[in-house]
Amino acid sequence: MTEKKKTTIVLFSGDYDKAMAAYIIANGAAAYDHEVTIFHTFWGLNALRKDEDIAVKKGFMERMFGKMMPRGADKMGLSKMNFAGMGPKLIKDIMKKHNAMPLPQLIEMAQEQDVKLVACTMTMDLLGLKQEELLGNIEYAGVAAYLADAEDGNVNLFI
Amino acid sequence: MTEKKKTTIVLFSGDYDKAMAAYIIANGAAAYDHEVTIFHTFWGLNALRKDEDIAVKKGFMERMFGKMMPRGADKMGLSKMNFAGMGPKLIKDIMKKHNAMPLPQLIEMAQEQDVKLVACTMTMDLLGLKQEELLGNIEYAGVAAYLADAEDGNVNLFI
Amino acid sequence: MTEKKKTTIVLFSGDYDKAMAAYIIANGAAAYDHEVTIFHTFWGLNALRKDEDIAVKKGFMERMFGKMMPRGADKMGLSKMNFAGMGPKLIKDIMKKHNAMPLPQLIEMAQEQDVKLVACTMTMDLLGLKQEELLGNIEYAGVAAYLADAEDGNVNLFI
Repeated sequence: MTEKKKTTIVLFSGDYDKAMAAYIIANGAAAYDHEVTIFHTFWGLNALRKDEDIAVKKGFMERMFGKMMPRGADKMGLSKMNFAGMGPKLIKDIMKKHNAMPLPQLIEMAQEQDVKLVACTMTMDLLGLKQEELLGNIEYAGVAAYLADAEDGNVNLFI
Repeated sequence: MTEKKKTTIVLFSGDYDKAMAAYIIANGAAAYDHEVTIFHTFWGLNALRKDEDIAVKKGFMERMFGKMMPRGADKMGLSKMNFAGMGPKLIKDIMKKHNAMPLPQLIEMAQEQDVKLVACTMTMDLLGLKQEELLGNIEYAGVAAYLADAEDGNVNLFI
Repeated sequence: MTEKKKTTIVLFSGDYDKAMAAYIIANGAAAYDHEVTIFHTFWGLNALRKDEDIAVKKGFMERMFGKMMPRGADKMGLSKMNFAGMGPKLIKDIMKKHNAMPLPQLIEMAQEQDVKLVACTMTMDLLGLKQEELLGNIEYAGVAAYLADAEDGNVNLFI
Protein backbone atom coordinates (compact mmCIF):
# COMPACT_ATOMS: atom_id res chain seq x y z
CA MET A 1 0.00 0.00 0.00
CA THR A 2 1.42 3.36 -0.95
CA GLU A 3 0.90 6.39 1.19
CA LYS A 4 -1.37 9.17 0.06
CA LYS A 5 0.28 12.26 -1.39
CA LYS A 6 -0.23 15.45 0.58
CA THR A 7 -1.05 19.01 -0.41
CA THR A 8 -1.07 21.88 2.08
CA ILE A 9 -2.01 25.46 1.39
CA VAL A 10 -1.60 28.44 3.70
CA LEU A 11 -4.34 30.85 2.68
CA PHE A 12 -3.11 34.20 3.98
CA SER A 13 -4.80 36.37 1.38
CA GLY A 14 -8.30 37.79 1.71
CA ASP A 15 -8.72 38.34 -2.03
CA TYR A 16 -11.53 36.57 -3.87
CA ASP A 17 -9.35 35.61 -6.83
CA LYS A 18 -6.49 34.27 -4.71
CA ALA A 19 -8.89 32.27 -2.54
CA MET A 20 -10.43 30.88 -5.74
CA ALA A 21 -6.99 29.76 -6.91
CA ALA A 22 -6.36 28.14 -3.53
CA TYR A 23 -9.66 26.25 -3.55
CA ILE A 24 -9.34 25.19 -7.20
CA ILE A 25 -5.90 23.69 -6.51
CA ALA A 26 -7.21 22.09 -3.28
CA ASN A 27 -10.22 20.55 -5.00
CA GLY A 28 -8.04 19.34 -7.86
CA ALA A 29 -5.58 17.74 -5.45
CA ALA A 30 -8.44 16.08 -3.51
CA ALA A 31 -9.82 14.68 -6.79
CA TYR A 32 -6.29 13.34 -7.39
CA ASP A 33 -6.61 11.55 -4.07
CA HIS A 34 -4.22 13.78 -2.14
CA GLU A 35 -4.76 14.45 1.54
CA VAL A 36 -5.40 18.22 1.46
CA THR A 37 -5.25 20.90 4.15
CA ILE A 38 -6.01 24.60 3.81
CA PHE A 39 -4.68 26.55 6.76
CA HIS A 40 -6.50 29.92 6.90
CA THR A 41 -4.55 32.68 8.56
CA PHE A 42 -4.79 36.49 8.71
CA TRP A 43 -7.14 37.83 5.97
CA GLY A 44 -7.67 34.33 4.62
CA LEU A 45 -9.86 33.69 7.67
CA ASN A 46 -12.52 35.87 6.04
CA ALA A 47 -13.21 33.09 3.53
CA LEU A 48 -14.52 31.04 6.46
CA ARG A 49 -16.81 33.71 7.94
CA LYS A 50 -20.55 33.13 7.92
CA ASP A 51 -22.36 35.76 5.92
CA GLU A 52 -24.79 36.75 8.67
CA ASP A 53 -23.99 39.03 11.60
CA ILE A 54 -23.32 36.89 14.66
CA ALA A 55 -23.78 38.48 18.08
CA VAL A 56 -20.61 37.91 20.07
CA LYS A 57 -18.98 39.91 22.84
CA LYS A 58 -15.94 41.81 21.58
CA GLY A 59 -13.69 44.67 22.53
CA PHE A 60 -13.86 47.94 20.55
CA MET A 61 -10.99 47.25 18.18
CA GLU A 62 -12.06 43.67 17.48
CA ARG A 63 -15.56 44.98 16.71
CA MET A 64 -14.09 47.53 14.31
CA PHE A 65 -11.99 44.95 12.51
CA GLY A 66 -15.01 42.66 12.37
CA LYS A 67 -17.11 45.37 10.73
CA MET A 68 -14.51 46.28 8.15
CA MET A 69 -13.46 42.83 7.06
CA PRO A 70 -15.60 41.03 4.47
CA ARG A 71 -18.18 38.73 6.01
CA GLY A 72 -17.63 35.52 4.10
CA ALA A 73 -16.24 34.34 0.80
CA ASP A 74 -18.88 36.04 -1.32
CA LYS A 75 -17.99 39.52 -0.03
CA MET A 76 -14.25 39.42 -0.71
CA GLY A 77 -12.56 41.82 -3.16
CA LEU A 78 -10.13 41.19 -6.00
CA SER A 79 -6.34 41.49 -5.80
CA LYS A 80 -6.35 43.33 -9.18
CA MET A 81 -8.95 45.40 -11.00
CA ASN A 82 -11.20 45.58 -7.98
CA PHE A 83 -12.66 48.88 -9.29
CA ALA A 84 -13.97 50.00 -5.91
CA GLY A 85 -15.91 46.81 -5.51
CA MET A 86 -17.21 46.46 -9.11
CA GLY A 87 -14.51 43.93 -10.05
CA PRO A 88 -15.86 41.00 -8.06
CA LYS A 89 -19.33 41.47 -9.60
CA LEU A 90 -17.80 41.50 -13.09
CA ILE A 91 -15.80 38.35 -12.42
CA LYS A 92 -18.82 36.60 -10.94
CA ASP A 93 -20.95 37.49 -13.97
CA ILE A 94 -18.26 36.14 -16.28
CA MET A 95 -17.93 33.03 -14.14
CA LYS A 96 -21.65 32.41 -14.30
CA LYS A 97 -21.56 32.78 -18.09
CA HIS A 98 -18.75 30.21 -18.24
CA ASN A 99 -20.37 27.90 -15.68
CA ALA A 100 -17.37 28.31 -13.38
CA MET A 101 -18.02 27.67 -9.69
CA PRO A 102 -18.14 30.73 -7.42
CA LEU A 103 -16.01 30.71 -4.28
CA PRO A 104 -18.72 29.71 -1.75
CA GLN A 105 -19.47 26.60 -3.83
CA LEU A 106 -15.78 25.80 -4.20
CA ILE A 107 -15.58 25.84 -0.40
CA GLU A 108 -18.62 23.55 -0.10
CA MET A 109 -17.09 21.19 -2.62
CA ALA A 110 -13.84 21.13 -0.66
CA GLN A 111 -15.77 20.16 2.47
CA GLU A 112 -17.56 17.39 0.58
CA GLN A 113 -14.20 16.10 -0.62
CA ASP A 114 -12.86 16.06 2.94
CA VAL A 115 -10.35 18.82 2.41
CA LYS A 116 -9.30 19.74 5.95
CA LEU A 117 -10.16 23.40 6.54
CA VAL A 118 -8.24 24.87 9.44
CA ALA A 119 -8.59 28.28 11.07
CA CYS A 120 -5.42 29.68 12.64
CA THR A 121 -6.29 30.30 16.27
CA MET A 122 -3.52 32.84 16.84
CA THR A 123 -4.72 35.19 14.08
CA MET A 124 -8.42 34.63 14.98
CA ASP A 125 -7.45 36.03 18.32
CA LEU A 126 -5.64 39.01 16.79
CA LEU A 127 -8.48 39.87 14.41
CA GLY A 128 -11.09 39.24 17.10
CA LEU A 129 -12.90 36.44 15.23
CA LYS A 130 -14.86 33.91 17.30
CA GLN A 131 -15.67 30.29 16.44
CA GLU A 132 -19.40 31.17 16.30
CA GLU A 133 -18.67 33.51 13.38
CA LEU A 134 -16.98 30.86 11.25
CA LEU A 135 -18.42 28.02 9.17
CA GLY A 136 -19.15 24.70 10.84
CA ASN A 137 -17.14 21.56 10.22
CA ILE A 138 -13.71 23.18 10.32
CA GLU A 139 -10.74 22.65 12.61
CA TYR A 140 -8.87 25.05 14.87
CA ALA A 141 -5.11 24.88 15.20
CA GLY A 142 -1.83 26.78 15.27
CA VAL A 143 1.40 26.91 13.32
CA ALA A 144 2.70 23.68 14.91
CA ALA A 145 -0.19 21.66 13.43
CA TYR A 146 0.39 23.32 10.04
CA LEU A 147 4.08 22.38 10.08
CA ALA A 148 3.31 18.81 11.09
CA ASP A 149 1.20 18.50 7.93
CA ALA A 150 3.50 20.47 5.66
CA GLU A 151 6.76 18.72 6.53
CA ASP A 152 5.45 15.59 4.81
CA GLY A 153 3.68 17.51 2.04
CA ASN A 154 4.38 16.97 -1.63
CA VAL A 155 2.89 20.30 -2.66
CA ASN A 156 3.10 23.13 -0.10
CA LEU A 157 1.92 26.57 -1.16
CA PHE A 158 1.53 29.98 0.49
CA ILE A 159 -1.23 31.98 -1.17
CA MET B 1 21.19 7.57 -13.59
CA THR B 2 19.53 9.91 -11.14
CA GLU B 3 16.29 11.61 -11.94
CA LYS B 4 16.19 15.30 -12.63
CA LYS B 5 15.05 17.58 -9.83
CA LYS B 6 11.85 19.48 -10.51
CA THR B 7 10.78 23.06 -9.90
CA THR B 8 7.22 24.28 -10.49
CA ILE B 9 5.96 27.82 -10.12
CA VAL B 10 2.35 28.98 -10.24
CA LEU B 11 2.55 32.56 -11.50
CA PHE B 12 -0.75 34.08 -10.35
CA SER B 13 0.47 37.65 -10.00
CA GLY B 14 0.40 40.20 -12.77
CA ASP B 15 3.06 42.41 -11.15
CA TYR B 16 6.31 43.07 -13.01
CA ASP B 17 8.48 42.57 -9.94
CA LYS B 18 6.81 39.32 -8.89
CA ALA B 19 7.00 37.95 -12.43
CA MET B 20 10.70 38.90 -12.46
CA ALA B 21 11.24 36.94 -9.26
CA ALA B 22 9.42 33.95 -10.77
CA TYR B 23 11.50 34.00 -13.95
CA ILE B 24 14.79 34.56 -12.13
CA ILE B 25 14.13 31.52 -9.92
CA ALA B 26 12.98 29.50 -12.96
CA ASN B 27 16.06 30.40 -15.00
CA GLY B 28 18.29 29.65 -12.04
CA ALA B 29 16.67 26.25 -11.53
CA ALA B 30 16.99 25.45 -15.25
CA ALA B 31 20.68 26.36 -15.12
CA TYR B 32 20.91 23.94 -12.17
CA ASP B 33 19.51 21.29 -14.48
CA HIS B 34 16.05 21.15 -12.92
CA GLU B 35 13.00 20.38 -15.01
CA VAL B 36 11.08 23.65 -14.66
CA THR B 37 7.43 24.56 -15.24
CA ILE B 38 5.77 27.95 -14.86
CA PHE B 39 2.00 27.63 -14.76
CA HIS B 40 0.49 31.05 -15.60
CA THR B 41 -2.95 31.64 -14.15
CA PHE B 42 -5.20 34.66 -13.58
CA TRP B 43 -3.20 37.93 -13.89
CA GLY B 44 0.00 35.99 -14.46
CA LEU B 45 -1.30 35.23 -17.95
CA ASN B 46 -0.56 38.83 -18.88
CA ALA B 47 3.16 38.02 -18.86
CA LEU B 48 2.50 35.78 -21.87
CA ARG B 49 0.50 38.31 -23.92
CA LYS B 50 1.92 39.56 -27.18
CA ASP B 51 2.46 43.30 -27.11
CA GLU B 52 0.50 44.03 -30.28
CA ASP B 53 -3.30 44.22 -30.52
CA ILE B 54 -4.59 40.95 -31.97
CA ALA B 55 -7.99 40.96 -33.68
CA VAL B 56 -10.09 38.21 -32.12
CA LYS B 57 -13.84 37.88 -31.65
CA LYS B 58 -14.85 38.51 -28.07
CA GLY B 59 -17.88 39.32 -25.99
CA PHE B 60 -18.21 42.79 -24.42
CA MET B 61 -16.84 41.93 -21.00
CA GLU B 62 -13.93 39.91 -22.37
CA ARG B 63 -13.07 42.86 -24.63
CA MET B 64 -13.17 45.18 -21.63
CA PHE B 65 -10.89 42.98 -19.57
CA GLY B 66 -8.60 42.61 -22.57
CA LYS B 67 -8.29 46.40 -22.90
CA MET B 68 -7.61 46.99 -19.25
CA MET B 69 -5.09 44.28 -18.61
CA PRO B 70 -1.45 44.93 -19.53
CA ARG B 71 -0.54 43.68 -22.98
CA GLY B 72 2.61 41.70 -22.29
CA ALA B 73 5.39 41.52 -19.77
CA ASP B 74 6.80 44.94 -20.55
CA LYS B 75 3.54 46.72 -19.63
CA MET B 76 3.04 45.23 -16.19
CA GLY B 77 3.02 47.38 -13.02
CA LEU B 78 4.84 46.95 -9.74
CA SER B 79 3.42 45.38 -6.57
CA LYS B 80 4.93 48.21 -4.50
CA MET B 81 5.89 51.81 -5.30
CA ASN B 82 4.15 51.71 -8.65
CA PHE B 83 3.65 55.52 -8.45
CA ALA B 84 0.81 55.60 -10.97
CA GLY B 85 2.92 53.83 -13.52
CA MET B 86 6.24 55.63 -12.91
CA GLY B 87 7.64 52.81 -10.77
CA PRO B 88 8.20 50.29 -13.58
CA LYS B 89 10.12 52.90 -15.60
CA LEU B 90 12.31 53.67 -12.59
CA ILE B 91 13.03 50.00 -11.96
CA LYS B 92 13.79 49.41 -15.63
CA ASP B 93 16.21 52.35 -15.73
CA ILE B 94 17.96 51.02 -12.65
CA MET B 95 18.04 47.54 -14.12
CA LYS B 96 19.61 48.83 -17.31
CA LYS B 97 22.25 50.67 -15.27
CA HIS B 98 23.05 47.44 -13.43
CA ASN B 99 22.90 45.29 -16.58
CA ALA B 100 20.02 43.26 -15.12
CA MET B 101 17.76 41.53 -17.62
CA PRO B 102 14.31 43.03 -18.14
CA LEU B 103 11.31 40.70 -17.92
CA PRO B 104 10.74 40.11 -21.65
CA GLN B 105 14.35 38.90 -21.95
CA LEU B 106 14.01 36.73 -18.85
CA ILE B 107 11.04 35.07 -20.56
CA GLU B 108 13.02 34.56 -23.79
CA MET B 109 15.86 33.06 -21.79
CA ALA B 110 13.45 30.69 -20.05
CA GLN B 111 12.19 29.50 -23.42
CA GLU B 112 15.75 28.96 -24.63
CA GLN B 113 16.45 26.90 -21.52
CA ASP B 114 13.35 24.75 -22.14
CA VAL B 115 11.43 26.00 -19.14
CA LYS B 116 7.89 24.75 -19.79
CA LEU B 117 5.59 27.77 -19.96
CA VAL B 118 1.97 26.81 -19.45
CA ALA B 119 -1.14 28.98 -19.78
CA CYS B 120 -4.08 27.97 -17.56
CA THR B 121 -6.97 27.33 -19.94
CA MET B 122 -9.68 27.83 -17.32
CA THR B 123 -8.57 31.35 -16.44
CA MET B 124 -7.85 32.22 -20.11
CA ASP B 125 -11.50 31.48 -20.62
CA LEU B 126 -12.57 33.64 -17.68
CA LEU B 127 -10.42 36.60 -18.69
CA GLY B 128 -11.35 36.17 -22.35
CA LEU B 129 -7.79 35.58 -23.58
CA LYS B 130 -7.34 33.63 -26.82
CA GLN B 131 -4.35 31.53 -27.89
CA GLU B 132 -3.67 33.99 -30.76
CA GLU B 133 -3.02 36.72 -28.19
CA LEU B 134 -0.34 34.77 -26.32
CA LEU B 135 3.29 34.06 -27.15
CA GLY B 136 4.16 31.10 -29.35
CA ASN B 137 5.87 27.97 -28.06
CA ILE B 138 3.85 27.64 -24.86
CA GLU B 139 1.55 24.90 -23.61
CA TYR B 140 -2.10 24.98 -22.60
CA ALA B 141 -3.35 22.99 -19.64
CA GLY B 142 -5.47 22.94 -16.50
CA VAL B 143 -4.98 22.38 -12.79
CA ALA B 144 -4.70 18.58 -13.22
CA ALA B 145 -1.58 18.95 -15.36
CA TYR B 146 -0.11 21.40 -12.86
CA LEU B 147 -0.66 18.97 -9.99
CA ALA B 148 0.85 16.08 -11.93
CA ASP B 149 4.06 18.14 -12.23
CA ALA B 150 3.98 19.58 -8.73
CA GLU B 151 3.40 16.35 -6.81
CA ASP B 152 6.90 15.21 -7.79
CA GLY B 153 8.38 18.69 -7.47
CA ASN B 154 11.30 19.50 -5.19
CA VAL B 155 10.61 23.22 -5.20
CA ASN B 156 6.95 24.27 -5.63
CA LEU B 157 6.12 27.95 -5.32
CA PHE B 158 3.00 30.11 -5.69
CA ILE B 159 3.90 33.65 -6.73
CA MET C 1 21.03 9.41 12.60
CA THR C 2 18.26 11.01 10.57
CA GLU C 3 18.80 14.16 8.64
CA LYS C 4 17.20 17.39 9.77
CA LYS C 5 14.09 18.54 7.94
CA LYS C 6 14.44 21.77 6.02
CA THR C 7 12.21 24.80 5.63
CA THR C 8 13.00 27.63 3.22
CA ILE C 9 11.05 30.84 2.78
CA VAL C 10 11.52 33.45 0.07
CA LEU C 11 10.36 36.69 1.65
CA PHE C 12 9.57 38.92 -1.34
CA SER C 13 6.88 41.00 0.32
CA GLY C 14 7.52 44.21 2.21
CA ASP C 15 4.24 44.02 4.16
CA TYR C 16 4.33 43.84 7.95
CA ASP C 17 1.64 41.16 8.14
CA LYS C 18 3.21 38.94 5.49
CA ALA C 19 6.64 39.26 7.08
CA MET C 20 5.04 38.33 10.42
CA ALA C 21 3.56 35.19 8.85
CA ALA C 22 6.97 34.32 7.39
CA TYR C 23 8.78 34.74 10.69
CA ILE C 24 6.09 32.91 12.70
CA ILE C 25 6.37 29.92 10.37
CA ALA C 26 10.17 30.14 10.44
CA ASN C 27 10.32 30.28 14.24
CA GLY C 28 7.84 27.42 14.48
CA ALA C 29 9.89 25.30 12.11
CA ALA C 30 13.09 26.08 14.01
CA ALA C 31 11.38 25.05 17.26
CA TYR C 32 10.47 21.81 15.45
CA ASP C 33 14.18 21.35 14.82
CA HIS C 34 14.09 22.15 11.10
CA GLU C 35 17.00 23.82 9.42
CA VAL C 36 15.41 27.12 8.37
CA THR C 37 16.40 29.75 5.80
CA ILE C 38 14.64 33.01 4.99
CA PHE C 39 15.85 34.44 1.70
CA HIS C 40 14.96 38.16 1.61
CA THR C 41 14.53 39.58 -1.86
CA PHE C 42 12.97 42.74 -3.36
CA TRP C 43 10.75 44.53 -0.78
CA GLY C 44 11.36 41.77 1.76
CA LEU C 45 14.85 43.24 2.21
CA ASN C 46 13.28 46.12 4.12
CA ALA C 47 12.64 43.78 7.05
CA LEU C 48 16.43 43.58 7.46
CA ARG C 49 17.11 47.32 7.35
CA LYS C 50 18.45 49.02 10.46
CA ASP C 51 16.11 51.70 11.72
CA GLU C 52 18.68 54.48 11.83
CA ASP C 53 19.86 56.47 8.82
CA ILE C 54 23.23 55.10 7.69
CA ALA C 55 25.51 57.38 5.68
CA VAL C 56 26.53 55.55 2.52
CA LYS C 57 27.46 56.79 -0.93
CA LYS C 58 24.64 56.24 -3.42
CA GLY C 59 23.44 57.38 -6.80
CA PHE C 60 20.36 59.61 -7.07
CA MET C 61 17.83 56.87 -7.78
CA GLU C 62 19.20 54.53 -5.12
CA ARG C 63 18.97 57.39 -2.63
CA MET C 64 15.36 58.01 -3.66
CA PHE C 65 14.40 54.36 -3.26
CA GLY C 66 16.20 54.28 0.06
CA LYS C 67 14.22 57.28 1.32
CA MET C 68 10.88 55.90 0.23
CA MET C 69 11.23 52.35 1.41
CA PRO C 70 10.50 51.58 5.08
CA ARG C 71 13.60 51.62 7.26
CA GLY C 72 13.30 48.34 9.12
CA ALA C 73 10.64 45.87 10.17
CA ASP C 74 8.87 48.23 12.52
CA LYS C 75 8.10 50.75 9.74
CA MET C 76 6.47 48.38 7.27
CA GLY C 77 2.82 48.73 6.18
CA LEU C 78 0.01 46.18 6.00
CA SER C 79 -1.06 44.27 2.87
CA LYS C 80 -4.72 44.96 3.79
CA MET C 81 -6.46 47.68 5.79
CA ASN C 82 -3.33 49.81 5.96
CA PHE C 83 -5.54 52.93 6.31
CA ALA C 84 -2.84 55.34 5.19
CA GLY C 85 -0.48 54.04 7.83
CA MET C 86 -2.96 53.69 10.72
CA GLY C 87 -3.38 49.94 10.18
CA PRO C 88 0.03 48.88 11.48
CA LYS C 89 -0.48 50.89 14.67
CA LEU C 90 -3.86 49.24 15.22
CA ILE C 91 -2.44 45.76 14.67
CA LYS C 92 0.49 46.48 16.98
CA ASP C 93 -1.86 47.73 19.73
CA ILE C 94 -3.95 44.59 19.39
CA MET C 95 -0.83 42.43 19.38
CA LYS C 96 0.41 44.06 22.56
CA LYS C 97 -2.98 43.45 24.19
CA HIS C 98 -2.76 39.77 23.23
CA ASN C 99 0.92 39.48 24.17
CA ALA C 100 1.81 38.59 20.58
CA MET C 101 5.38 39.30 19.53
CA PRO C 102 5.93 42.29 17.20
CA LEU C 103 7.97 41.74 14.04
CA PRO C 104 11.34 43.12 15.27
CA GLN C 105 11.22 40.64 18.17
CA LEU C 106 10.20 37.79 15.86
CA ILE C 107 13.32 38.56 13.84
CA GLU C 108 15.50 38.61 16.96
CA MET C 109 14.02 35.29 18.03
CA ALA C 110 14.75 33.81 14.60
CA GLN C 111 18.39 34.88 14.94
CA GLU C 112 18.58 33.33 18.42
CA GLN C 113 17.19 30.07 17.01
CA ASP C 114 19.82 30.08 14.22
CA VAL C 115 17.38 30.68 11.40
CA LYS C 116 19.63 31.59 8.49
CA LEU C 117 18.69 35.08 7.32
CA VAL C 118 19.90 35.78 3.80
CA ALA C 119 19.81 39.03 1.84
CA CYS C 120 19.58 38.64 -1.94
CA THR C 121 22.59 40.46 -3.35
CA MET C 122 21.08 40.98 -6.79
CA THR C 123 18.06 42.89 -5.50
CA MET C 124 20.15 44.78 -2.90
CA ASP C 125 22.05 46.06 -5.87
CA LEU C 126 18.86 47.03 -7.74
CA LEU C 127 17.30 48.81 -4.77
CA GLY C 128 20.59 50.40 -3.84
CA LEU C 129 20.84 48.86 -0.38
CA LYS C 130 24.31 48.45 1.16
CA GLN C 131 25.49 45.90 3.73
CA GLU C 132 26.04 48.70 6.26
CA GLU C 133 22.31 49.47 6.16
CA LEU C 134 21.23 45.94 7.05
CA LEU C 135 21.20 44.07 10.36
CA GLY C 136 24.33 42.25 11.48
CA ASN C 137 24.69 38.50 11.59
CA ILE C 138 23.00 37.82 8.24
CA GLU C 139 24.31 36.19 5.06
CA TYR C 140 24.57 37.51 1.52
CA ALA C 141 23.81 35.29 -1.43
CA GLY C 142 22.07 34.91 -4.77
CA VAL C 143 19.43 32.70 -6.32
CA ALA C 144 21.86 29.77 -6.75
CA ALA C 145 22.37 29.52 -2.98
CA TYR C 146 18.61 29.72 -2.43
CA LEU C 147 18.00 26.87 -4.87
CA ALA C 148 20.70 24.73 -3.29
CA ASP C 149 18.81 25.00 0.02
CA ALA C 150 15.32 24.69 -1.45
CA GLU C 151 15.90 21.64 -3.61
CA ASP C 152 16.27 19.55 -0.45
CA GLY C 153 13.58 21.46 1.45
CA ASN C 154 10.52 19.81 2.96
CA VAL C 155 8.58 23.04 3.20
CA ASN C 156 9.39 25.73 0.60
CA LEU C 157 7.27 28.86 0.56
CA PHE C 158 7.21 32.13 -1.38
CA ILE C 159 5.70 34.93 0.70
